[in-house]
Amino acid sequence: MSFFRPNIDRLAGYTPGEQPQDTGWVKLNTNENPYPPSPHVVEAITQAAQGRLNLYPDPLGTAFRKAAAEVFQVEPDWILPGNGSDENLTILIRAFADTSDQVVYPYPSYILYETLADIQGAAHSRIPLNADWSWNFTAAAPLIDRAKLLLVPNPNSPSGNRWSDETILRAVPPRGILVLDEAYGDFADQPHRAQLLRSDKRHQIVITRTFSKSYSLAGIRFGFAIAHPDVIAGMRKVKDSYNCDSLSLAAATAAMKDQAWMQQNVERIRATRQRLADELAKLGFLVTPSQANFVWTTHRDRASRELYLSLKARKILVRFMVYHDVPWAANQTLEGLRITIGTDAEIDQLLATLREIL
Amino acid sequence: MSFFRPNIDRLAGYTPGEQPQDTGWVKLNTNENPYPPSPHVVEAITQAAQGRLNLYPDPLGTAFRKAAAEVFQVEPDWILPGNGSDENLTILIRAFADTSDQVVYPYPSYILYETLADIQGAAHSRIPLNADWSWNFTAAAPLIDRAKLLLVPNPNSPSGNRWSDETILRAVPPRGILVLDEAYGDFADQPHRAQLLRSDKRHQIVITRTFSKSYSLAGIRFGFAIAHPDVIAGMRKVKDSYNCDSLSLAAATAAMKDQAWMQQNVERIRATRQRLADELAKLGFLVTPSQANFVWTTHRDRASRELYLSLKARKILVRFMVYHDVPWAANQTLEGLRITIGTDAEIDQLLATLREIL
Repeated sequence: MSFFRPNIDRLAGYTPGEQPQDTGWVKLNTNENPYPPSPHVVEAITQAAQGRLNLYPDPLGTAFRKAAAEVFQVEPDWILPGNGSDENLTILIRAFADTSDQVVYPYPSYILYETLADIQGAAHSRIPLNADWSWNFTAAAPLIDRAKLLLVPNPNSPSGNRWSDETILRAVPPRGILVLDEAYGDFADQPHRAQLLRSDKRHQIVITRTFSKSYSLAGIRFGFAIAHPDVIAGMRKVKDSYNCDSLSLAAATAAMKDQAWMQQNVERIRATRQRLADELAKLGFLVTPSQANFVWTTHRDRASRELYLSLKARKILVRFMVYHDVPWAANQTLEGLRITIGTDAEIDQLLATLREIL
Repeated sequence: MSFFRPNIDRLAGYTPGEQPQDTGWVKLNTNENPYPPSPHVVEAITQAAQGRLNLYPDPLGTAFRKAAAEVFQVEPDWILPGNGSDENLTILIRAFADTSDQVVYPYPSYILYETLADIQGAAHSRIPLNADWSWNFTAAAPLIDRAKLLLVPNPNSPSGNRWSDETILRAVPPRGILVLDEAYGDFADQPHRAQLLRSDKRHQIVITRTFSKSYSLAGIRFGFAIAHPDVIAGMRKVKDSYNCDSLSLAAATAAMKDQAWMQQNVERIRATRQRLADELAKLGFLVTPSQANFVWTTHRDRASRELYLSLKARKILVRFMVYHDVPWAANQTLEGLRITIGTDAEIDQLLATLREIL
């Protein structure tokens, strides 16, 4: 006999990418940054560890909000720190999505959105993307019309493409909120900050950002949302009082203040991304042009699943992804590999292994 | 125009105890431990900071679960780590409480339970406690009967008293889950581990524990739940994949392994608690015998609010608490001071200041 809510009983639960706890892997499956965080981050954590950990952290994350506000050229009350970007997505669902509400998102994209809606018990619908990953607004319009919450990863995962500001603004639901999930925002060739929050739709847009990718800090679980203060104030009611700890607040503040370190790593990743795309093409792969720290690719002749398993057998992890109900895919099933941009040495090893396998 | 769910719009939000960000305060208001955490904790954090923070943490917290399982003499699959005990309470509400379900809890106790139910949109009811903080099962029975989730802090806050295992087992709802919130469990004269999970009601009991109090680690945000593996598995579906970060996992594991350090601080706090209670009594205070790291007290002649403000003006923070709709209190309003057990020096300063004020 179970006492769980029926929607929880039904839930399979979200499966994150594999996280092997042993060493020796070339790990190109969960879009981590291969470079270490800023040395100032390590210093800040070490100092905070010697501080007063017996006391609760600042529940508002004042120092962090000030640092982020400066970079994004907004006031600190536009910023909400979270225990990873995942927590801010959870807060958004809990704040806006009643069981009678529709949560919608483009598809294929980040499947966690569906899991979060299921946990909440809210209805959800997919906006089918075109084969070139563009939006079909004719098909999307009725879904956008009734959306309470539209979640859009930009750049998108698994494809890595990035939609224009014009597309994003056009997608804002007339009676709801658009969440612009910019987890990969810093890797775009022309990254922007909070420009869309200066548009006339600023009351209906929430931007989420993470330290897990561009700042090389997946281990500290830290993200933040940027939105109009009225929206932030409502989100704050939903969060746990002390959702961010003293160590991650110190780390994230130091990381935010060292933009040069982050930018340097981003540049390297962009260069490696181009090289990987070029080399994959030579090996017979079709590669979607990427604005993120990964590429989405399929091989002309070989099944993605087979390549994934062959690589895994050689201790190279990439992400094998399957999306059902994709009208333009063979058997309506889209399969492919999402490969994180590692160091140049890791990518060399991947390419050498692929040459061996193919 | 607001797009928030109506229950969120209505919500005032939970107000945590004051956390002044400047120094010079004697802080006896949020039940923090005045002693530092184990030196092994600081080492573990420093080492983790120099490790691979660019990678995601272990989503299951394997090393921590193993350490906790040993101390509590259960298998690791009985343990769920959380981003503070608050997160586990949130997970429990989200996992068990539908909008049509009843969340109940003794009153006066931890008012956060009500906020969490409001955020979820679930109904909630208070089980009124007797004036001596005991349970009136005749009055409680109908509420327990229809409870999906009964949350019981034990020792209780603000009173600091502790209910017997017999009382707890009797309170388990016939069609629901009892959450035994043991945030202050280690401060009891006869603390127990997971004994109640060996009773025949083990499928309906979840124990929550925190590192914020006895382990002197409010700053790292770490707690854990102990329950039957079927219950843990369902709770895990609700949590964010990476809810605990690498630094707090390392810190909590080191703290759990250093039981001697925690016990030594607990002993000191117990001794200071007794001394504070005795001295307060001499000053005309009525003190509820406490099994926690705080005491609940009112003065025979002076209003609690006035004493709180006088202390605050002298940079000593205690918690002034007000509970409405308490049948046995004057004007049905219970007011009092909840004073955290600080160091002996801090308590001396408090007592000297009180003597001055009174």
